Amino acid sequence: MKVLSLLRESLGPIVDVSDDSLEVARADRSGHAAEGTPLAVVHAESVEHVQETMRIATATRTPVVVRGAGTGLAGAANAGTGEIVLSLARMTAIHEVSSDDLLAVVEPGILNADLNRELATHGLWWAPDPASRDISTVGGNIATGAGGLLCAKYGVVRDAVLGVDLVLADGRLMHLGHRSVKGVTGLDLTALVIGSEGTLGVVVGATLKLRRLVQGETCTVTAVFPGVRSAAAAAAAVTAAGVQPAIMELMDAASLSAVHALLSLPVPAPGAAQLTIQTDGPAAAAEADAIAAILRTHDGVTTVSHDREEGDRLLAIRRSMHAAMASLGTTLIEDVSVPRSAMPAMFDEIARIESAYGLTIPTVAHAGDGNLHPNFIFEGPETPDHVWAAADELFRAAILLGGTLTGEHGIGVLKRRWLADELGDDQWQLQRQIAAVFDPLGLMNPGKVFVTGA
Amino acid sequence: MKVLSLLRESLGPIVDVSDDSLEVARADRSGHAAEGTPLAVVHAESVEHVQETMRIATATRTPVVVRGAGTGLAGAANAGTGEIVLSLARMTAIHEVSSDDLLAVVEPGILNADLNRELATHGLWWAPDPASRDISTVGGNIATGAGGLLCAKYGVVRDAVLGVDLVLADGRLMHLGHRSVKGVTGLDLTALVIGSEGTLGVVVGATLKLRRLVQGETCTVTAVFPGVRSAAAAAAAVTAAGVQPAIMELMDAASLSAVHALLSLPVPAPGAAQLTIQTDGPAAAAEADAIAAILRTHDGVTTVSHDREEGDRLLAIRRSMHAAMASLGTTLIEDVSVPRSAMPAMFDEIARIESAYGLTIPTVAHAGDGNLHPNFIFEGPETPDHVWAAADELFRAAILLGGTLTGEHGIGVLKRRWLADELGDDQWQLQRQIAAVFDPLGLMNPGKVFVTGA
Repeated sequence: MKVLSLLRESLGPIVDVSDDSLEVARADRSGHAAEGTPLAVVHAESVEHVQETMRIATATRTPVVVRGAGTGLAGAANAGTGEIVLSLARMTAIHEVSSDDLLAVVEPGILNADLNRELATHGLWWAPDPASRDISTVGGNIATGAGGLLCAKYGVVRDAVLGVDLVLADGRLMHLGHRSVKGVTGLDLTALVIGSEGTLGVVVGATLKLRRLVQGETCTVTAVFPGVRSAAAAAAAVTAAGVQPAIMELMDAASLSAVHALLSLPVPAPGAAQLTIQTDGPAAAAEADAIAAILRTHDGVTTVSHDREEGDRLLAIRRSMHAAMASLGTTLIEDVSVPRSAMPAMFDEIARIESAYGLTIPTVAHAGDGNLHPNFIFEGPETPDHVWAAADELFRAAILLGGTLTGEHGIGVLKRRWLADELGDDQWQLQRQIAAVFDPLGLMNPGKVFVTGA
Repeated sequence: MKVLSLLRESLGPIVDVSDDSLEVARADRSGHAAEGTPLAVVHAESVEHVQETMRIATATRTPVVVRGAGTGLAGAANAGTGEIVLSLARMTAIHEVSSDDLLAVVEPGILNADLNRELATHGLWWAPDPASRDISTVGGNIATGAGGLLCAKYGVVRDAVLGVDLVLADGRLMHLGHRSVKGVTGLDLTALVIGSEGTLGVVVGATLKLRRLVQGETCTVTAVFPGVRSAAAAAAAVTAAGVQPAIMELMDAASLSAVHALLSLPVPAPGAAQLTIQTDGPAAAAEADAIAAILRTHDGVTTVSHDREEGDRLLAIRRSMHAAMASLGTTLIEDVSVPRSAMPAMFDEIARIESAYGLTIPTVAHAGDGNLHPNFIFEGPETPDHVWAAADELFRAAILLGGTLTGEHGIGVLKRRWLADELGDDQWQLQRQIAAVFDPLGLMNPGKVFVTGA
């Protein structure tokens, strides 16, 4: 096959056609797998490798799927028949860490947690902390516009990237953005690339905006409520009071039960929901006390811990959600986001959908920013139709409440069919045309985000 | 004339062809004025007025210059021969203020200060605070991607807008962005519109991300240094120490002298430069003390005030810079931004350029984020060639130091010729093509940012 021989001729041993590698590249953590098998996995180790791969792809009109660690939850990095997988997992260098300028220049394949381990030795950190931070790459975080637990206080990826180096479909390399904090020269293409899910080009480097590690103690407040609605109302009251937690996580009754079972903790009271809140910075203790007072007036059975290790242990309950769901069956992790004040109404909608479809939909929420993760559990590898029908109602409810289809996971393949519902047809067309400016031949992750031919 | 009669027929008395209005629309606060006189000023009072104007513009292929308060510093809103001026200054409504969701939905013509006065009654504020905040509109702040004094701690416009409503050149209305804090549905067109200087469409509404008013005292630290380099080094040391001031303003000797003369304050010591720093929030006093200690080790003659009114009085010295410059002659206010650590080197470059061109270039800086405003002073309305030559060296020096042509004022007409130097030809072409997706006929602010025909 011509493409393969061109790749091998130019790139040699980094072109991988082993069955295992091809199989792995078909799927991510969403449960979705692409149809068929990709042509090859190119394990790029340099920008030049990426450029050469793209030049061959353009010359032969071969579609390319860029891939990091494959931890996505929307199928955006899944590769199928006839596609080249361009893996950046080996591009893990940290080129620069500047404490004075609070920036780092890195390659895309480095894991979020590995980067932050290194930054910590400089007293620094990169704030985006998706739940997958131990296993997901910085490039993947940029491609999805990832969020996480700390976003309400410390921002999402979009707030933490100064510039990206982008290889276009035709192999040209562009330097987008700045090293300076401010900069308004021309259009903000850096922001456009963040969250573009591999449809515009290949991010081969990033200049990240760092923070200094937060000094002082971390306080952890946990509160158990009689039901999810009162927990959501209490979370909204915390925000409305003007206190800014670093983390504010909500677990509904089904989530809490599942995690307690997994971790062999005592069975929670029927219907009980929980808030786990952390405060940090110079006012951490005062804020924790203020938050505890608010939670108690909302009937939360509340405890405050000033011990960081105890706090980690308490948060581990929330962080075990994914494992707890996996123990129940195949999981479709959903990701709607609504204005904070609409959270109680969104929980009502979830209850309505549970009842209408005879489902239990364990749900956790980043309650500080209105981002909910309802989990659909089923047997077998394929998401059943009635689950998609329930998810459809969920998405439409979120949009009606002023929210969005996806707060942090992206569109990928799993949500393509709802994209135009949120954007409107005009904006959907406009977005496709913009993508075509970067990639006129449609080789970058075709069929993802924007359904081809629609 | 056909265009004018179409506008009058559809829009009636909001179509203004008075000599005064047309003359005002030719210029902004940059000192630049467009050639010739525009066709008419349309004083839009509704989204429908904007859409109708754009439909007529498209039908007749007439270029449109969108305008707010006309306080720009790069000529982006200046209108000349054959152009329709679409003024949004009458669209000043606040449609919604949500304290629970920390957002406001506003029309673009409202002044930044008027909005913040209203928000303050809810205990809220919109953080972007360009020096022009009393006289510039929110729409103009969005169009330029404005910055200000508080950016290092509280962010720029790009960090403070959740969504915009955009009318395209052909009159279609699009709703971009979200009401939720998080959202990664499709490409981030909201970020693309911010800072696009009227080249993509007309921003007719914005959903702004608000903050709660900061509680507690505000402390103000002032320090006088023997020279600008030591002041810049002291500012860098504050940042490097991990303290986060709300405001950190640097004035060089020429700036300080001019303002002291204007305000009838004592003449500063020869060569003396000044830092004015404010801290706020729960740790304000401790941070002010820590900052004062750093400044003293850098030979700054330092005082700390815990009185908010005294702080306002001290900051008024910095805020009088524009008036002080105007008292000296015509001013070209420049706006380069460099990584923080490069600030001392940038001041060296300014000294070199002063000496090479026989100029004095009074310079102030937002020292917390590396954004410098060198002021070129001259006689008469036209910027002389040798001033442009000096500015040319200034821009190139900033880019070589890893910085940018413009931190917060934009490209407009005044910096078009340097845009490709910073972006590179490939990115410059790509940006033009993206603008053409929004505006295929090239009617939106033609000749601004991207030089037509280049």
